[in-house]
Amino acid sequence: MHHQEFMQLTISEAQKAGTPFAASIAMGNDILVTKVQSVSPEHDPTAHAIVLALRELGQLTHQTDFSGYTLYSTCEPCMMCGGAALWSHIGEIYYGVPRTWITQHYKNNDPGCSKVLKKSIEQLTIHPEFMFKECIHLFE
Amino acid sequence: MHHQEFMQLTISEAQKAGTPFAASIAMGNDILVTKVQSVSPEHDPTAHAIVLALRELGQLTHQTDFSGYTLYSTCEPCMMCGGAALWSHIGEIYYGVPRTWITQHYKNNDPGCSKVLKKSIEQLTIHPEFMFKECIHLFE
Repeated sequence: MHHQEFMQLTISEAQKAGTPFAASIAMGNDILVTKVQSVSPEHDPTAHAIVLALRELGQLTHQTDFSGYTLYSTCEPCMMCGGAALWSHIGEIYYGVPRTWITQHYKNNDPGCSKVLKKSIEQLTIHPEFMFKECIHLFE
Repeated sequence: MHHQEFMQLTISEAQKAGTPFAASIAMGNDILVTKVQSVSPEHDPTAHAIVLALRELGQLTHQTDFSGYTLYSTCEPCMMCGGAALWSHIGEIYYGVPRTWITQHYKNNDPGCSKVLKKSIEQLTIHPEFMFKECIHLFE
């Protein structure tokens, strides 16, 4: 099951960086990028893990259409990251901790993106709460 | 009325770059950054004008909290850009063309962000369809 392996690798990168927020993008059996949230160190309010991963994949491939790629995230994409996934035409998203948990824990009210993404015209499959138990440890 | 002057400057930058999408961020009487959409040239699916402007302001100020700053955009922020504005704590947004017009014209279904942002706990004032006539010329 490479989905579990890829999520585990994403979790490990988050642990190494000391943040709960990490994301990877894979094509078939290969992970191409893994990034962690870097808002403060990079002085960039948009430097969430998913945005950084999409940006780096653009640099690697010189493309901006990632149909057929799969995104792994330790949590449900926020509104910004969900929008970025939408514009990138990402094909599939696996995520761990749902946004409802995140917003409660961090006392913000980002609405998350699953409902919006499900209504999208894009061909997008979402796997919520994938390896939830492993991911929630990062946030606790 | 510096709001009109700032929007006019933003429109002019869009015209120069040959794109309808441009955004500026100002504090009081000064515009600090103006950016245009650069997805294809930068191979970056997140390189919308608003995201780029927020990112550059972070580099300029070494901050990621832009409370008190005002954002000017030729169109209503998309979901990604609206999320980015939310995380940046932008205080005020002036935009020209509403998202409903954009989604119809470009045949995508990005839901825009005004409704979500209005429900936000952030102190955010939105001025929709500001200088609409001047902005719509960019898109026609």
